[in-house]
Amino acid sequence: MNKDSLINRNMSEDKLRIDKIKKGTVIDHITGGYALTILNLTGLDESPNLMTIGINVSSNKFQKKDIIKIEGVFLNETQMQQISILSPNNSISLIENYKVIEKKKVKIPKVIKKLVLCANKTCISNSDEPIDSEFSVLEEKPLKIQCVYCNRMYKLDEITFSSKGKTEKRVKQRIIL
Amino acid sequence: MNKDSLINRNMSEDKLRIDKIKKGTVIDHITGGYALTILNLTGLDESPNLMTIGINVSSNKFQKKDIIKIEGVFLNETQMQQISILSPNNSISLIENYKVIEKKKVKIPKVIKKLVLCANKTCISNSDEPIDSEFSVLEEKPLKIQCVYCNRMYKLDEITFSSKGKTEKRVKQRIIL
Repeated sequence: MNKDSLINRNMSEDKLRIDKIKKGTVIDHITGGYALTILNLTGLDESPNLMTIGINVSSNKFQKKDIIKIEGVFLNETQMQQISILSPNNSISLIENYKVIEKKKVKIPKVIKKLVLCANKTCISNSDEPIDSEFSVLEEKPLKIQCVYCNRMYKLDEITFSSKGKTEKRVKQRIIL
Repeated sequence: MNKDSLINRNMSEDKLRIDKIKKGTVIDHITGGYALTILNLTGLDESPNLMTIGINVSSNKFQKKDIIKIEGVFLNETQMQQISILSPNNSISLIENYKVIEKKKVKIPKVIKKLVLCANKTCISNSDEPIDSEFSVLEEKPLKIQCVYCNRMYKLDEITFSSKGKTEKRVKQRIIL
């Protein structure tokens, strides 16, 4: 086995990676290039815990994939929904004592509430009224969602995520784009 | 050797990690928790190349550290300056054919131009005049810089980074905080 295939072997064999985590979560088969967005959106980037992240890892199943391994952290419902919107093929494994105690395919919900913002400025979900955003999922792969208030439709790359529920980002993340 | 020490061994032995990269860059001894900010600020998060990232890895030298390993990418001068501002203790290794061909301690520059914005709205560097921001580095650890125009001083956690020179972020990064 040459060194190239050693790299690929090490990066793509999930059992190997899962073996190394004592207690926590492995998010695998993330659409290539989406891991950092997932960490930012879910707030996992603020965790003080040990994390290992592989980005653009060779994968037979979905071409390139990302993988996130977090020690001592289990995801809440909001985080799982956010991940399912960004990356529909991911699988989430919960680890205890080096063993997978639960493996789940996170399904995208039929209705997405609060997590996504409608880009239509005149939409009532953007008014001063106490109305949360709400989208129907029309198609899952590729994603197509529709605002239930103004009927505007969005594909994944047109979506603006909200993270109102999140604590304020630390100052070191303050980057003007 | 128990499994805990296996994890630490795997995560902290740089030679092991560097061994696995054929050609590219290893940024090691990043201040714990700063790897994702570095990827965002330098634009490395847009790379289609294989990356491995360790966050909050146990390290004797500086308590917790981060490490970034990127296949097939070498850093430019701007990226190295950005990294030196965020993480003064990092070391950067350039890899060719699985071997370290160059190892450098990136020093923070004495004067920081363009990369950082002055938060003083009435500062001339924020006016319509064609004047780039410029800061003198007063102290390196912990960082303390001073705007050469309005003399306002900033610590690391008070700094706002500019990334005007960068190409626009992809839509999937569009997250409202």
